[in-house]
Amino acid sequence: MALTLYWGSGSSFSWRVLLALEHKRLPYVSELLHFDKQEHQSPHMLKLNPRGRVPVLKDQDYVVFESLAVLYYLDLKYPDPPIFGLNPEEAGVIMRVICEFQAYAEPSLMNITEAVFTNQVQGRFEELSDAMHIVGREARTIEGRLSKETWIVGANYSAADMVIFPAIQLLRRALSKPQAAELGARFLPMEKNYPALARWIDRIENLPGYARTYPPHWRDAERTTPI
Amino acid sequence: MALTLYWGSGSSFSWRVLLALEHKRLPYVSELLHFDKQEHQSPHMLKLNPRGRVPVLKDQDYVVFESLAVLYYLDLKYPDPPIFGLNPEEAGVIMRVICEFQAYAEPSLMNITEAVFTNQVQGRFEELSDAMHIVGREARTIEGRLSKETWIVGANYSAADMVIFPAIQLLRRALSKPQAAELGARFLPMEKNYPALARWIDRIENLPGYARTYPPHWRDAERTTPI
Repeated sequence: MALTLYWGSGSSFSWRVLLALEHKRLPYVSELLHFDKQEHQSPHMLKLNPRGRVPVLKDQDYVVFESLAVLYYLDLKYPDPPIFGLNPEEAGVIMRVICEFQAYAEPSLMNITEAVFTNQVQGRFEELSDAMHIVGREARTIEGRLSKETWIVGANYSAADMVIFPAIQLLRRALSKPQAAELGARFLPMEKNYPALARWIDRIENLPGYARTYPPHWRDAERTTPI
Repeated sequence: MALTLYWGSGSSFSWRVLLALEHKRLPYVSELLHFDKQEHQSPHMLKLNPRGRVPVLKDQDYVVFESLAVLYYLDLKYPDPPIFGLNPEEAGVIMRVICEFQAYAEPSLMNITEAVFTNQVQGRFEELSDAMHIVGREARTIEGRLSKETWIVGANYSAADMVIFPAIQLLRRALSKPQAAELGARFLPMEKNYPALARWIDRIENLPGYARTYPPHWRDAERTTPI
């Protein structure tokens, strides 16, 4: 098989690429690396990406990493169905929405999820509340888009959805932890606070192949831990 | 004329787009906004981009912002000469190098330049030294690429050059200020510390149309202030 994806469970950047591969119905070898065993830092992986980060996509002898670059490469190499729009105008909006998300929402969102998963919410509550305020504002903009359209940009599921969806899922998971209850009070339940976003999540969760993209360690935790 | 670019003097993000427009030899109306008069926050500009940021490109009725999205749109709409490579493989590397620069170098680089221009170097010296260490490491990687090739990716001047060049110029300008002398000691002079990068800067400075992209207030300062 031509394509191999090296990825990690719970890495929102990896998840973007898995969504794209499934949407394009491309066959790929799935190489799930275990962060706890430092498999992403193995000599083999450092040879592919000296930064030791995932996702890394190998297409025969060609190697590409940085999730946005992987999505971009995949779309040029395997254009059907397109994930960067049907014309330059739509492509520009998709890329703009991705850039805005990465510049204005993601840093705060990642601070929050990291703090929750490393149990630092109490000590950094004020800073995280500010971050939550920023994330809430950006989420409202996306909510606005999704209250008018099925997908974030235009009539089709696109790279904008694939970039934003994993981060929202990560945030939702973080905010549902008991230690984040106060922080997430205005965000969860999404069905009430962000109904269009909630419906959009539901829509993506029902896409063919979605189960293969879902972080395996989240599923394991859901099987064994009552939340 | 179809294209109008709204931009600001010294905005490295604006500079990227100016370089692309000149390289593609596209005629455009240049709307230079004055940050000190808050022209980027005028009602007219906020209607084009609610965040009040530049660059903003208008192509007849179509509006796009976020510099990477503008470059991407321009390349799809006006593909000759291409700035995102000649094939999917090269395009993937160009986008990867851009993403790496934005993720790993730019935040530290922007911290440094902002601190220098607002005269905060003394009070934040340790933090800025750490940032300079990160920037130096990323610059060495680019130096490595440029010691083997004329341009950052592949045989042609590309979006990777256009994204990275303005930030390097901004950094060089910041580090040449007296208050940044110690911070910049291992970076400047670039001819000595980063000779391939210095030659690459020279190469871009000699491209046709370069003078039109150069921040006007830098030129004014150079005319009146002996550096």
